[in-house]
Amino acid sequence: MTYELHYWPGLQGRGEFVRLALEDAGADYVDVARGPEDAGGGEAALVERMERRQPTPPFAPPFLVDGDLVIAQTANILLHLGPWLALTPIDHGGRLWVNQMQLTIADLVAEAHDTHHPIDVGAWYDEQKEAAAARAKAFREQRIPKYLGWFETILERHGGQWLVPSQITYADLSLFQAVEGLRYAFPRAMARLEDRLPKVGALAARVAQRPRIADYLLSPRRIPFNEDGVFRRYPELDG
Amino acid sequence: MTYELHYWPGLQGRGEFVRLALEDAGADYVDVARGPEDAGGGEAALVERMERRQPTPPFAPPFLVDGDLVIAQTANILLHLGPWLALTPIDHGGRLWVNQMQLTIADLVAEAHDTHHPIDVGAWYDEQKEAAAARAKAFREQRIPKYLGWFETILERHGGQWLVPSQITYADLSLFQAVEGLRYAFPRAMARLEDRLPKVGALAARVAQRPRIADYLLSPRRIPFNEDGVFRRYPELDG
Repeated sequence: MTYELHYWPGLQGRGEFVRLALEDAGADYVDVARGPEDAGGGEAALVERMERRQPTPPFAPPFLVDGDLVIAQTANILLHLGPWLALTPIDHGGRLWVNQMQLTIADLVAEAHDTHHPIDVGAWYDEQKEAAAARAKAFREQRIPKYLGWFETILERHGGQWLVPSQITYADLSLFQAVEGLRYAFPRAMARLEDRLPKVGALAARVAQRPRIADYLLSPRRIPFNEDGVFRRYPELDG
Repeated sequence: MTYELHYWPGLQGRGEFVRLALEDAGADYVDVARGPEDAGGGEAALVERMERRQPTPPFAPPFLVDGDLVIAQTANILLHLGPWLALTPIDHGGRLWVNQMQLTIADLVAEAHDTHHPIDVGAWYDEQKEAAAARAKAFREQRIPKYLGWFETILERHGGQWLVPSQITYADLSLFQAVEGLRYAFPRAMARLEDRLPKVGALAARVAQRPRIADYLLSPRRIPFNEDGVFRRYPELDG
């Protein structure tokens, strides 16, 4: 069965957390909006699928179509995929813990987004640069250390390679993506911080070296970071 | 078995979404930080439980202790409780859909919070009032209609009383809380909007009339809305 991933073409955004899980597992999927229009792809196909009169409409991309299920919200998609991709523990408590970590990454990602859009998600960055500078300062100095410090603590406590000591999970892949995004958007702030986050850094390196992830990162399927995504490099926001 | 809910005393905040589910189900729970210190309660008990050296530390309250499980992130707590409280469907797809709606409410709640803290969650509202006014305007004019309009659409499509037509779920209780919070924080904006949201309004009224919820809302367990919570009444943010 082929999964249909629907996300805006041209940016990593929140869709990337789903892509990494599908890629690491070698799952069969199509990235619908990036496909050719004459084969049912393109952005119009995404919009049609989202706006169709259906009982469970997505609020926003990304969403996954898996047979009869139409599933939105990044963490919810991963909650669904986790067992099928063997990227979550088998036990209930373990799955809740992975979901909890994923939701905390989602909060971090939302805050990273708001560094360039602190006032109005519908307006341009240039219209909210002053507020963005202030929000980015608080994010760099307080929020990134708090979030990544929490993950460092988790890894320190059990001494294992992954967030769940017994196995890799989708939360590891997502933490890699968050760290990569923060390095892209805030290279100076992250360079100052990373000495205090050796285990998070080692985890991110370990994810990047997984064979399927390494292949993916070098493939044209991996969209480069850019200023349309969640993580944007605006040097004035990097302090 | 008694559930232990841990949340900051003195405000509804995100803990309220969990309280409403526990109350509607008539579940046995203690609201730890609101209990007397000589019986193991108080804010110090919450902090101790959160900062204890444990393998799955909460990033922030609310968190629920259920036997050996320590579960944080509001939507994750409800995902866990849903089946035990009979507040979620039995089937996998139904549970994912309820979780998806809950995560969308969580996004709405985070944006409501950021109307009074658009720059720095660690600073006072008075230090970010100008940015707050701008963010609140975008929130009132674009975001509230988009979020609540989505729920209205869901209810219109199936014509039922609850978000899932076959039964009440924790997402209904949370939507009630979100609507009540928005009415408290943005009474003028909501008064203008509600004509266009008859089904959402009727759902909220239906939740308030459920016997256990009606009792709860009149009890001292229900903390009044106030300016320490997520939803704050600052008239200058209401346009």
